[in-house]
Amino acid sequence: MTTAPALEVQRSNGVAAASCMERLGSAADNLRRSVVGFAAKLGKIARDDPRRVAHALKVGLALTLVSVLYYVTPLFRGFGVSTLWAVLTVVVVMEFTVGGTLSKGLNRAFATLVAGFIAVGAHKVADLCGDKGEPILLAIFVFLLASAATFSRFIPEVKARYDYGVTIFILTFSLVAVSSYRVEELIKLAHQRFSTIVVGVLTCLCTTVFVFPVWAGEDLHKLAATNLDKLADFLEGMESECFKEDTTSEDLESKAFLQVYKSVLNSKATEDSLCNFAKWEPGHGKFSFRHPWGQYQKLGALCRQCASSMEAIASYVVTLKKSQYPEANPELSSKVRTTCGEMSLYSAKTLRELSEAIKTMTVPSTASTHMSAAVKAAKSLRNELSEDAALLQVMHVAVIASLLSDLVSQIKKINDSVDNLAKLACFKNPEKAQKEVVINIVS
Amino acid sequence: MTTAPALEVQRSNGVAAASCMERLGSAADNLRRSVVGFAAKLGKIARDDPRRVAHALKVGLALTLVSVLYYVTPLFRGFGVSTLWAVLTVVVVMEFTVGGTLSKGLNRAFATLVAGFIAVGAHKVADLCGDKGEPILLAIFVFLLASAATFSRFIPEVKARYDYGVTIFILTFSLVAVSSYRVEELIKLAHQRFSTIVVGVLTCLCTTVFVFPVWAGEDLHKLAATNLDKLADFLEGMESECFKEDTTSEDLESKAFLQVYKSVLNSKATEDSLCNFAKWEPGHGKFSFRHPWGQYQKLGALCRQCASSMEAIASYVVTLKKSQYPEANPELSSKVRTTCGEMSLYSAKTLRELSEAIKTMTVPSTASTHMSAAVKAAKSLRNELSEDAALLQVMHVAVIASLLSDLVSQIKKINDSVDNLAKLACFKNPEKAQKEVVINIVS
Repeated sequence: MTTAPALEVQRSNGVAAASCMERLGSAADNLRRSVVGFAAKLGKIARDDPRRVAHALKVGLALTLVSVLYYVTPLFRGFGVSTLWAVLTVVVVMEFTVGGTLSKGLNRAFATLVAGFIAVGAHKVADLCGDKGEPILLAIFVFLLASAATFSRFIPEVKARYDYGVTIFILTFSLVAVSSYRVEELIKLAHQRFSTIVVGVLTCLCTTVFVFPVWAGEDLHKLAATNLDKLADFLEGMESECFKEDTTSEDLESKAFLQVYKSVLNSKATEDSLCNFAKWEPGHGKFSFRHPWGQYQKLGALCRQCASSMEAIASYVVTLKKSQYPEANPELSSKVRTTCGEMSLYSAKTLRELSEAIKTMTVPSTASTHMSAAVKAAKSLRNELSEDAALLQVMHVAVIASLLSDLVSQIKKINDSVDNLAKLACFKNPEKAQKEVVINIVS
Repeated sequence: MTTAPALEVQRSNGVAAASCMERLGSAADNLRRSVVGFAAKLGKIARDDPRRVAHALKVGLALTLVSVLYYVTPLFRGFGVSTLWAVLTVVVVMEFTVGGTLSKGLNRAFATLVAGFIAVGAHKVADLCGDKGEPILLAIFVFLLASAATFSRFIPEVKARYDYGVTIFILTFSLVAVSSYRVEELIKLAHQRFSTIVVGVLTCLCTTVFVFPVWAGEDLHKLAATNLDKLADFLEGMESECFKEDTTSEDLESKAFLQVYKSVLNSKATEDSLCNFAKWEPGHGKFSFRHPWGQYQKLGALCRQCASSMEAIASYVVTLKKSQYPEANPELSSKVRTTCGEMSLYSAKTLRELSEAIKTMTVPSTASTHMSAAVKAAKSLRNELSEDAALLQVMHVAVIASLLSDLVSQIKKINDSVDNLAKLACFKNPEKAQKEVVINIVS
């Protein structure tokens, strides 16, 4: 027979066990949910660009190929422990694009060669100074060369194309110079290391070029076409949503065309790195070795400027649609509206045509026809308005005034953002600061 | 006595020698000039930011310190050939800012530790499969882990903060797993290598933190203030050059204030990397460890949006100044002009105040007064214009129309740029292409 308190204990034990199970269950649930969420995220990354999966497998393949060098004994005898340098090279040199891998691989191979020669020379010089002088002289050499090479990385041209090479130069020079103090067969060591690095670089190159190659040049080419398409999307959206006769003043802010050009604004970094890599790539597909890659950067700069004007228009259109005015001058309004529609439409057509021309690599044939139609519409608008000189004059000043008043509301946002920063970062209060000064002076 | 032909030969020899000397002289001249030019360029890089020289010397210092480990024999006995890994670590981990070095150093140390443990585990598992199975199983492990780790680098969060760590993870795992097949004292090797890497990282950290430290956070903080100042410069320039009563319509394009905001547009990449590094830095100077660095990115985005509106205004102002119109409605024009001046002036004052507040880290006290003056001016402008409802209505449509016609001329530039690309890259001619198709069909 169990007494009442014992029953109570049993019951509370039961409750505790149940709540424990519950907690475990909810923890398992949370875990399952976050695992599922993570898997979905990985799936999305893979689906967005399946070449990413291919790249991951390619890195695995190249590493496995190189490690076979180590396992197969006859090859290992030739290279010795230096085989590890081949593994290291593969890990560091493999990049997503062929151009990236080529740039890093060539930088690594040449920098190793040059630094190796200089380091052997430095060793010979230091050798002349006897046992005591040698380490001191070597240390001085390392200090001077490392400092000079590091400083050279601040030169923009070096930074853009040879940054990795300079790092490897410093690395190889220090390694060879420092180990020359102890290793007897320096030349043999340097030779082994260089050959293993070349083997590593060649493995990387073969894997990137022959297994699902990703060309930086092709990506840059596609990026240019996509950017033009995005700009065209904006203009088409403007035409259909703002300048059609039957457009209703509905909520514009949620429309896709007012967001799509924004990614063009931030495309500079991607474009610069792709262009840098594309210059290293050999001819492939439709692109020759001397393809004018620099031209894509110029085009990109113009597209970004365009997108930046579109940002001004977009913010203006949104505020305009919000405030309703009576149709005071219906005739002129409708005329201007029609011309705006024409300008948008023909500009959009031009951009689409240009994008298509880039995609198919054919000379744009009808783009200039659309372009002149847009220019003509712009001119006719100016003529229309210049008939009323007073209006034109006022209008010009008014445009700047409107843009400025738009700017004022943007600066208001900056003001709020800095206020927020001041709060979060606990900025000093100026009155308090003054008081403290006063107190300090008094005391 | 010399005959005439011999004299001729002598003379021509003399001429040849003279021209050779001349050529040598001009080559020496060219060389001297390019050396002087290069030296001037280096001098400018150093003068622009003297911390660059300090950084170069710091890298030299850290490398020399670490190589002393190798020269001083008792230390060398403890570490063995692994000392070279300390040299390698210093070369690869030393970055310009404290945050950069910390991020790379911690990534390197932790990734080495984790990968080392996993690799030793993989070795134990592979060991169970006998002599023949071991290399096969190790190769499979290397392939799987390298592929998975490489794929993880495409996750944006990993890419932003742990990209270097993942590289080192793959590197260490492959090196340890591969060499475990031959090296007997695996644990000892792993231990030595880890300690030398820690020594390398500590050397880097001491050098970057204690010798002229460059804090990424401080640079980010200064960048925010400078960007605000640049925006203020533009507005001040507008006020004094465009909206003063006595401004002459001189050439505006060459003015500095129309160029200075442009660097704000391209500040995103620098800002993102500084912010990423700043998050790794410990508290220093006026900044605590949990300083709201993310807020600077938000502020930066707003500043870039502002700069992009300024770009639209700038291109508009330049074209406006070029075309002269008769003063048709002098009274209204002058009113609008005055209000525009007020908006620019008070906005500029707000921005200056905010920049000053960030610089001194005090709560901006009078910025909101200036801000409300600017907002009031914008409102009064709207009221002024809304008295004439017809004008307001036309004006709003006209603003968009003007902006669009401005956009048309920008798209014209894009058109020219693509034409140029088509010429340089030898795009196909569409007519020719069609003919070829026809010929193919016919034949």
